[in-house]
Amino acid sequence: MGLSLAYKVLKDHLIEGELKQGQEICIKVDQTLTQDSTGTMVYLQLEAMGVEGVKTDLSVAYIDHNTLQQGFENADDHEFIKTVAAKYGIVYSKPGNGICHQLQLENFGKPGSTLLGSDSHTPTGGGLGMISIGAGGLDVAVAMATGKYFMKVPKVINVKLSGKLSPWVSAKDIILHVLRELSVKGGVGKIVEYTGEGVKSLSVTDRATITNMGAELGATTSIFPSDSNTLEYLKLQGREGDWKEISADADATYDEVLEIDLSTLEPLVAQPHSPDNVRPVKEIINLKVDQISIGSCTNSSYSDLMKVARILKGKKVHPDVSLSIAPGSSAILKTLAENGALADMIAAGARILECACGPCIGMGQAPKTDAISLRTFNRNFFGRSGTESAQVYLVSPEVAAASALKGYLEDPRILDVELDIQMPEKFERNDSLFVYPPADRKSVEVVMGPNIKPFPVNKALGEKLEGKVVLKVEDNITTDHIMPSNASLLPYRSNIPHLANFSFSTVDKEFPQRCKDNGGGFIVGGDNYGQGSSREHAALAPLYLGIKAVITKSFARIHKANLINSGIIPLEFADASDYEKIGFMDDVEIGDLLSALPTGKVMLNDKTSGMSIELKFEGSERDIEILRRGGYLNYAKSNLI
Amino acid sequence: MGLSLAYKVLKDHLIEGELKQGQEICIKVDQTLTQDSTGTMVYLQLEAMGVEGVKTDLSVAYIDHNTLQQGFENADDHEFIKTVAAKYGIVYSKPGNGICHQLQLENFGKPGSTLLGSDSHTPTGGGLGMISIGAGGLDVAVAMATGKYFMKVPKVINVKLSGKLSPWVSAKDIILHVLRELSVKGGVGKIVEYTGEGVKSLSVTDRATITNMGAELGATTSIFPSDSNTLEYLKLQGREGDWKEISADADATYDEVLEIDLSTLEPLVAQPHSPDNVRPVKEIINLKVDQISIGSCTNSSYSDLMKVARILKGKKVHPDVSLSIAPGSSAILKTLAENGALADMIAAGARILECACGPCIGMGQAPKTDAISLRTFNRNFFGRSGTESAQVYLVSPEVAAASALKGYLEDPRILDVELDIQMPEKFERNDSLFVYPPADRKSVEVVMGPNIKPFPVNKALGEKLEGKVVLKVEDNITTDHIMPSNASLLPYRSNIPHLANFSFSTVDKEFPQRCKDNGGGFIVGGDNYGQGSSREHAALAPLYLGIKAVITKSFARIHKANLINSGIIPLEFADASDYEKIGFMDDVEIGDLLSALPTGKVMLNDKTSGMSIELKFEGSERDIEILRRGGYLNYAKSNLI
Repeated sequence: MGLSLAYKVLKDHLIEGELKQGQEICIKVDQTLTQDSTGTMVYLQLEAMGVEGVKTDLSVAYIDHNTLQQGFENADDHEFIKTVAAKYGIVYSKPGNGICHQLQLENFGKPGSTLLGSDSHTPTGGGLGMISIGAGGLDVAVAMATGKYFMKVPKVINVKLSGKLSPWVSAKDIILHVLRELSVKGGVGKIVEYTGEGVKSLSVTDRATITNMGAELGATTSIFPSDSNTLEYLKLQGREGDWKEISADADATYDEVLEIDLSTLEPLVAQPHSPDNVRPVKEIINLKVDQISIGSCTNSSYSDLMKVARILKGKKVHPDVSLSIAPGSSAILKTLAENGALADMIAAGARILECACGPCIGMGQAPKTDAISLRTFNRNFFGRSGTESAQVYLVSPEVAAASALKGYLEDPRILDVELDIQMPEKFERNDSLFVYPPADRKSVEVVMGPNIKPFPVNKALGEKLEGKVVLKVEDNITTDHIMPSNASLLPYRSNIPHLANFSFSTVDKEFPQRCKDNGGGFIVGGDNYGQGSSREHAALAPLYLGIKAVITKSFARIHKANLINSGIIPLEFADASDYEKIGFMDDVEIGDLLSALPTGKVMLNDKTSGMSIELKFEGSERDIEILRRGGYLNYAKSNLI
Repeated sequence: MGLSLAYKVLKDHLIEGELKQGQEICIKVDQTLTQDSTGTMVYLQLEAMGVEGVKTDLSVAYIDHNTLQQGFENADDHEFIKTVAAKYGIVYSKPGNGICHQLQLENFGKPGSTLLGSDSHTPTGGGLGMISIGAGGLDVAVAMATGKYFMKVPKVINVKLSGKLSPWVSAKDIILHVLRELSVKGGVGKIVEYTGEGVKSLSVTDRATITNMGAELGATTSIFPSDSNTLEYLKLQGREGDWKEISADADATYDEVLEIDLSTLEPLVAQPHSPDNVRPVKEIINLKVDQISIGSCTNSSYSDLMKVARILKGKKVHPDVSLSIAPGSSAILKTLAENGALADMIAAGARILECACGPCIGMGQAPKTDAISLRTFNRNFFGRSGTESAQVYLVSPEVAAASALKGYLEDPRILDVELDIQMPEKFERNDSLFVYPPADRKSVEVVMGPNIKPFPVNKALGEKLEGKVVLKVEDNITTDHIMPSNASLLPYRSNIPHLANFSFSTVDKEFPQRCKDNGGGFIVGGDNYGQGSSREHAALAPLYLGIKAVITKSFARIHKANLINSGIIPLEFADASDYEKIGFMDDVEIGDLLSALPTGKVMLNDKTSGMSIELKFEGSERDIEILRRGGYLNYAKSNLI
């Protein structure tokens, strides 16, 4: 029986366990990446592990989130990361160099290798044929310290592409279509593997747009084969030596198949407030637009921005539209500055922002009250733009640029522009914003500013948990709900005591105080709890507030892992309808935990209602051991190093 | 007796009064400008005046301060200003277009005309031979409504330039030298007029650097003659029709003269925390540098940035330095993108920021804890960078670029680079970010977001003032102390009730609450109280907090005018040593105010100490009438419109 490409790469990296769906395995991690908003915590954890250097082939520490620098905190984080990177043998990417995923793709990604990143959009690397997984910060710290990552073997969905995209339809429309078909939880526990004739018509950056936004499916990762297009891309970066051809076996079997005839697709848009709320652009073209933002790790490649420049050239952005453009890397910005495309954008009236995540993570460019904002980004969650009343629509760069000229959402197929973008002869690498670790790392002094606080560490698990249900929430709670990540909070990513005061602030401002008043307690949630960004802070803040267990109908993968890593027990209702039986502020208790967890069946006693409710725990022996020790850091120190 | 150029322009614009030093005159205002952080308030005031449109030849509303947009407030302000501009016949400059002073110079400034701006660096226009004055927002609102501005005729200092600058010495070094000679209060009540052979070697943008930073002298404004260099500059902008030759009479007399032989100057630096704390660069070249920022209305011209690009070309920014560059206008950015200079900067590792004020006003790029930051800006006041422990040094673009390569403060004369910058054939205007008012202005609907609150209005003056001395401060208090203008506060420029909670927060965090607890009161200050930025909010916040009078050794000009405009009485000690006699939280009272003010002598009774202290009031009859009515808005409505 043939193997999928995903399983082939996993097999090549298998250290422990059996490559069977649902089994826990340990794989070798070739590369890691961190960004600054999760990175400070990762490196605090790495420091606590007491190793001398990283065990990976390559680890890179990027600065791309907190680049506005509204106070000393951001620059202090940059300095901490720069010095800790030097100490442990990690490449440091200075602010202004660009977005981690775009930079990793351009400079370091290798077909057939593995990458673990403390950012949920790490699957971008799947565009190069990598197994590229977003994980909690602690998993990444352990991967750096040991070269290992533990995971459950996911199912593999095969998305089979046939045909070719019509003019003005692009990679963004493919992934929006997949989201429409599979929904934001359709990828949970799965790898999405793209195959078929249609793959050949997609460039590496097209593919990377698709694997990047595969994160919105809840998928473990997404992957494309490495073929002649991959070679062409690596050649352009001067890295043809990193190429190898890899693809699934001809007789590979998959758990599910989704077939897409690319020629049937048309320009699509994801409406507020979910990336799977997808509609054809042509159905809502009377939408008056206030703001348009082009960029992010999803759509900021050279060819994306060249298309935008071509559409804008010689024209003028509508006076009622604020159009911002942030290229994905300094190398792209430089190339656009050299070939005149940047000048064309500026002449049309675009605002050029620094190469960084920027508005995609609410770091600037918050639109006006009740604004309609079109963005080429990956997420349009409620409040993420920084303006709660704004309506954010996700679109391709072509739709964004066409709409910027019109002032209304526009179907770009109406444009009379030639979009035949040629790649430059060579895409010159910009090495001036990378800092490589020194030969003598022992003498490096790590600099920690006053805002960098130790992360919270849990205690070993006792026999009984009791407390109040201090929060009860609905389905599809995102990590943006649990720990908002707006411009005023991002500077505090290395200060959990401060951040915790804002946990669930868009849902229930009293939550942190209620936790403090009740000595912590339990959270009850609905389906797909913890979807979205990988941020570990969505587990660390509840840990700091004394949350003992989270009980839901179902969890998003990364967040569940983060809860276990923090020593918070993730439990699901055996019968989802029991969700109704637990009330807000009920007094609940769970006994015999240490013996119950391995059975998977955990009984909860609701002392307020007098009812007994059956919960299930799904986790490996290792997960139970981690919970027993009070989190992954305690576990890693005693069991792995 | 011949006239100075300053007096010639004033004479040409005289509406009321006599052109005699110290007399109050009313002049015709040809042009006004506002920026967004003062502008919302200006336009709320203009709206309250009930006029149909502006009476100036040209009024422009720029967006350059709050361009990061961390919440809906900024974009709401932009929308308010855009719509109010359309309603009253004002040109609107969209965010991303650049910095007001640079844009006004490039697009609208005219030799021999007058410009009033709600920004303290409005004197930049003096580089084109304009009388270009920074004023409180209310003065600018009245100027738009009536075409009039009331002022006391200043003295004129003649700065006579001879010789030529040596290589690597530039306009910034001239103004730093003048600051060293005259100090930050040396220009109070004066216009600085540049003459002499040395003027001919300075381009319009060199001159604009000097007049811009003349604001740091406390001067009313600074002015250069309009000559063939001026014509050359206007030609480059396609505006040769706006040129006329103007200069002082050959036998002009001046109140003071400062002679400078340009050939004797060397690269200079202003050390923390005052622009007049000036030293030669060569004396402190061992200073390790963490951050360098190039841009601001002082040094972001085409030739400034071309010099920077030339120095950086083919080299690499030191790994420990974060170098940011923000061009002054979108036209400059476009030109740099066209001619390869921008690509050179990016290749060297510079961070390219949006064309805006940015870090100069603490809007981003706050350096790390204890950082050394070199900036080509105009102010290095304590805390203004956003990092209280940072040490900010002001330098020329040449020093900044040389230091970026070295990682230490560097004397650029050591560089082996050819700096012969040629201007392009034509400096193409970028019109795509200007929005011109519509023909039919009546139907325009002004959009006011929820953060835009009415400005506070004072009451008519009573016979007696009493209360406690709720604050006593030292010399050289800046408007940054009185009303900090950091990134987290700038969004609230149109919300005085919120802002007032942060008044004097870097000096005494309890001040706002103390005012509220005591029903307002009095402030006692030292010399040069209210220097720095023109921000009216430094008067409006104290007004909102119930401050009745400010008693000092001396005032900075614009702030004193803002106090009067707000109906707060500015009083000075008749004997400066009496400053010691009033204690913090003393109970004080002033009686018979309405009869005392016209005499200039006001007696204060310190009920706590039992002492009687003589104060003086210096102001015109009009000032007294404004105070009597409770501020300029009340006065303008009843007396001018």
